[in-house]
Amino acid sequence: MKNLVGKLEAVLYTLDKESFVTSRVTSVQLDFGGIPGDRHFGITTKSDSRLPMYERGTEIQNRRQVSVVSLEECENVARELGVKEILPEWLGANLLISGIADLTKLRMGSRIMFPSGAVIICEGENPPCIHPGKVIEEKTQQVKIAPKFVKAAHQKRGIVCSVERPGEIYENDRVEVIY
Amino acid sequence: MKNLVGKLEAVLYTLDKESFVTSRVTSVQLDFGGIPGDRHFGITTKSDSRLPMYERGTEIQNRRQVSVVSLEECENVARELGVKEILPEWLGANLLISGIADLTKLRMGSRIMFPSGAVIICEGENPPCIHPGKVIEEKTQQVKIAPKFVKAAHQKRGIVCSVERPGEIYENDRVEVIY
Repeated sequence: MKNLVGKLEAVLYTLDKESFVTSRVTSVQLDFGGIPGDRHFGITTKSDSRLPMYERGTEIQNRRQVSVVSLEECENVARELGVKEILPEWLGANLLISGIADLTKLRMGSRIMFPSGAVIICEGENPPCIHPGKVIEEKTQQVKIAPKFVKAAHQKRGIVCSVERPGEIYENDRVEVIY
Repeated sequence: MKNLVGKLEAVLYTLDKESFVTSRVTSVQLDFGGIPGDRHFGITTKSDSRLPMYERGTEIQNRRQVSVVSLEECENVARELGVKEILPEWLGANLLISGIADLTKLRMGSRIMFPSGAVIICEGENPPCIHPGKVIEEKTQQVKIAPKFVKAAHQKRGIVCSVERPGEIYENDRVEVIY
């Protein structure tokens, strides 16, 4: 097992239930199921088009509780697209982390640990889709950037995680990654 | 994604709650949490020495709901140890599967699908420890075989899984592995 150390730059969740766009808060209490109040919270969830082996809407285990993105990867994608910035809000991310190189390539089963004792487990890459691209297009007022986002964000759009051990997490927390 | 097809040779669970040794049944209803009545059933579980980052007994997500072993790998370990057979019961296994080469090396996140629609997800290798070795020693009446088991069963002792989608599974079911 190897360790990496990074920083939790921002904590976010979906305050507006009509949108996947998230909003910053200073801390959240992670629970089994994810972030209470977030649209992805739940021990189980309904399957979507990402899992074609299920009829859409089938109740399945929720392995996409918490979306985590990397500050450096967001900057990288912004440069690639020629926009000033890509905010974690626009990607519907719950955690923005800095200091972990190639976060999106983190191995499934890796653990991200917080000072409170809270731990989340990497359930794999979050493949980029068109929806955040459309938000970026709208926010940056750049035309036709949505499909370009899907390409530029390949292996840079972060990971999805589930909560292994509940606990509070705070903006500016030290994070330790064990992989 | 790739597919493999195998067969569910046996379904087992811990009828005797005092022991990890399992007993055969003809079918079980997999639920979120695993096999109801089995000693490993639960959405959450208590951490043990396998996860040294937690104080022993910490409540964590249960990624070890269902233990799956391979008929061919059990035969292989038996040959290596010079014993007639190694039964899945002795390993505390819940499912005995045939036809899937190198089951223990199955990638984390791989899915094992059953005709009812039930699906379990591979959470990784189940590293061999001394306890099943002691059962094998007792059952086969071979002396000092327990430590030899730990070595011989390296990457052949099967995997642990969690339930992604509930459903019934039956002895002799066709199983499809997507990895």
